[in-house]
Amino acid sequence: MTKNLLPNKTDDPSEWYIRVIQLAELADYGPSKGTMIMRPYSYAIWEYIQKAFDNMIKEYGVENAYFPLFIPMSYLEREASHVEGFAPELAVVTHGGGQKLEEALVVRPTSETIINASFTKWVQSHRDLPIMLNQWCNAVRWEKRTLPFLRTSEFLWQEGHTVHATHEEAISMQRYALDSYAKLYREYFALDGYIGRKSKLETFAGADETLTYETMLPSGKALQSCTSHDLGQNFAKAFDTQFQDENGDNQYVWQTSWGLSTRSIGGLIMGHGDNNGLVLPPRLAPTQVVIVPINLKETTREYVKTLEKQMRTAGIRTKSDMRDDERFGYKLNKWEVKGVPLIVKVGDNEVAANKATIKRRDNSQETIVDLANVESEVRQLLENVQSSLLANSRRVRDENTREASNYEEMKQILADHKGFVKVYWNDNPKIEAKIKEETKAVSRCCIEENAQGTDFYTGEPASEIWLFAQSY
Amino acid sequence: MTKNLLPNKTDDPSEWYIRVIQLAELADYGPSKGTMIMRPYSYAIWEYIQKAFDNMIKEYGVENAYFPLFIPMSYLEREASHVEGFAPELAVVTHGGGQKLEEALVVRPTSETIINASFTKWVQSHRDLPIMLNQWCNAVRWEKRTLPFLRTSEFLWQEGHTVHATHEEAISMQRYALDSYAKLYREYFALDGYIGRKSKLETFAGADETLTYETMLPSGKALQSCTSHDLGQNFAKAFDTQFQDENGDNQYVWQTSWGLSTRSIGGLIMGHGDNNGLVLPPRLAPTQVVIVPINLKETTREYVKTLEKQMRTAGIRTKSDMRDDERFGYKLNKWEVKGVPLIVKVGDNEVAANKATIKRRDNSQETIVDLANVESEVRQLLENVQSSLLANSRRVRDENTREASNYEEMKQILADHKGFVKVYWNDNPKIEAKIKEETKAVSRCCIEENAQGTDFYTGEPASEIWLFAQSY
Repeated sequence: MTKNLLPNKTDDPSEWYIRVIQLAELADYGPSKGTMIMRPYSYAIWEYIQKAFDNMIKEYGVENAYFPLFIPMSYLEREASHVEGFAPELAVVTHGGGQKLEEALVVRPTSETIINASFTKWVQSHRDLPIMLNQWCNAVRWEKRTLPFLRTSEFLWQEGHTVHATHEEAISMQRYALDSYAKLYREYFALDGYIGRKSKLETFAGADETLTYETMLPSGKALQSCTSHDLGQNFAKAFDTQFQDENGDNQYVWQTSWGLSTRSIGGLIMGHGDNNGLVLPPRLAPTQVVIVPINLKETTREYVKTLEKQMRTAGIRTKSDMRDDERFGYKLNKWEVKGVPLIVKVGDNEVAANKATIKRRDNSQETIVDLANVESEVRQLLENVQSSLLANSRRVRDENTREASNYEEMKQILADHKGFVKVYWNDNPKIEAKIKEETKAVSRCCIEENAQGTDFYTGEPASEIWLFAQSY
Repeated sequence: MTKNLLPNKTDDPSEWYIRVIQLAELADYGPSKGTMIMRPYSYAIWEYIQKAFDNMIKEYGVENAYFPLFIPMSYLEREASHVEGFAPELAVVTHGGGQKLEEALVVRPTSETIINASFTKWVQSHRDLPIMLNQWCNAVRWEKRTLPFLRTSEFLWQEGHTVHATHEEAISMQRYALDSYAKLYREYFALDGYIGRKSKLETFAGADETLTYETMLPSGKALQSCTSHDLGQNFAKAFDTQFQDENGDNQYVWQTSWGLSTRSIGGLIMGHGDNNGLVLPPRLAPTQVVIVPINLKETTREYVKTLEKQMRTAGIRTKSDMRDDERFGYKLNKWEVKGVPLIVKVGDNEVAANKATIKRRDNSQETIVDLANVESEVRQLLENVQSSLLANSRRVRDENTREASNYEEMKQILADHKGFVKVYWNDNPKIEAKIKEETKAVSRCCIEENAQGTDFYTGEPASEIWLFAQSY
């Protein structure tokens, strides 16, 4: 496990990505097509993501629940655009307990339909509303081309599903979910992005409106990092989910759904990694600090142990590397590849002076600190790393956002730099499909709704500003 | 939702069980055979279980990971007794992305095989050992007769899988897992039970030895609450999982696996519930205290709000019930059915005297406490409820453990009382199969290994004491 096995990230981002996932022991390939094994190092990241987001939604009153993995095919068929969107990606169970099933069961690609059947049962009166549920689970979408984390047949995610008495309340929920995602991405992933509305072509199958948080990765490709949908009354009508309002009249409920998956970890890897491997933001790093002794003398080992204990007691996620079959330099490489935010080096000098040498993973800067205030120094350094990474991500996003006033300019930008192309545009699915075919880029989101300009494609007046990009 | 809808628990435990699950809003039926929807109230209990057990295993050095849901059929076939055990219960995916799959995929019934394939890849040297992994996930076993929580086609669980250099180390892990389960059951579920070894007939398909924690439910039926397996080198040989030891020799690894599922919640419901509904132990109760105002005057409401805030600040999981469309008596019933450990009643008297009336769910005792020390009083009461429930469970276990010296006595006990029947026995699968057919009881576990007595069935000398019982 040395960084020499890594290709240059800028020259060959795809190969770099595949290799770093293996070298850092994040994941491995599963035996069946497009599946992935999340090794402890990536699963621990997922646990930190879960914890952060779970707290945010519980604060809003959302409760966790669990619905069955298997959905009768007939359920999916009730919402026409929904089944059309998901049909090509379904995994189907046809046999159970040694017998052919009467009705084929779909392994959930998403759970709107099965959850709506319950909502119909549970919702009678306005007093039963809102119901705001979330589940942490696996989901399966049969993908043609797969890539660890970013596009796998099975993935882990949370899917929120809520029913409300009014459209206004549903929209508040949809916004709250998206704002929470944005907060999670900025404050934990340290990945800055754009918030906006999806185009008609890119809206979720069954939704009236999809909001998204779009990040830009250093490769110049965008990543849809999560989505939050206003489902309107589409599923309510398909599943006859009605409630009696305060006047005794029957009304259809208003609904939302929103999701964030392990694909987000793909963005994390791509977003911050460098030629030496992963770079993890401290708030999601399973190990925030690793102490690597320069020698293994008894005095050094004792010193390291004391230091480790001190840091752990202070709540800093700390490891020490006392292996006796690896050299110091090899160890440094190993922990750099794994993206640990701070490496603490301890040798004779440090022991003699009661100090520690701390190296930042993100910018290689070294600081020598007194043992007496090592916790506060480390805490400050971790905060600095976290905010540097976010600032860096903002820079990448801004540097990769370029304006185009016509289609030729857009094509030129995509050919020269990729990145986001910012244009005035009147959302039009036919035109978008054509652009997608010609440039591999699609609209990512609408970032301004009340502007005044000229549609880059048709030349007509346009009031909305959109971002286009190629994407993962 | 009133307790009048509940049948008497002793007279009709099966109907009581089904009804209380619906009335307390723990779960609902899923659309496909034998599946279940875990509503927020039961999922929150599962979250407390997860948190408690997750901490215990992480303390031992176990790490969480995630392996794919779909296992190639050929993997299962590699370990002969394993596939034989699970074949009748498999759900099979035959189509993906609109096409028939080349190899059918099994939806995991348990993950020994797929995880072992990774162990083979990851383990090279003794330095790579041990690897101790756990995953929280869903699993599917196609059951003929199903019952919410206790026997569902899909269930949630944790499955631990570990590889070690020595048999001794594997056995320590197996014991640690079982001891943790016992701790979890006693300290959180408040369900006392017996620890012991499973018979040859009841040992996990693919294991050398299975340890179990067996609880006795008031209905007289036993519940296998979790299992911990010494897999020996069975999967190691089937998957060729070898390591180079310190002398450079190749050796097969030693393995364990261990699991606890949402079936445990079935035991919790059955174990403590009474004719008025659920009774939840405070440490697993989503709501530990509910404040129910006797009237909805402004002064009472203010008083309730202040009290609720005070309790929440003290870290006690508290709700208040301010609904204006339900009467006080109805509300009391409702929260009793839901098994909330303490109900706090607040009316004019309490407001005037700065007091609160606290009613224990488990024994209906009421205490009047001063608002000034309400948190400490509540905390003490919660502890009292928790320990009373455990003591009660121990009593049920002991009262339902009866000795038999021959088969006739066993049959008589099972006919009269059900419960555990304690016998000297030489583990014999053929005899056990016969007993099972004739009495519906099987051995639950061996609780003493070095005793001296007479085999209850054959009359031969026997050194082991076993428990037999009917079970869920």
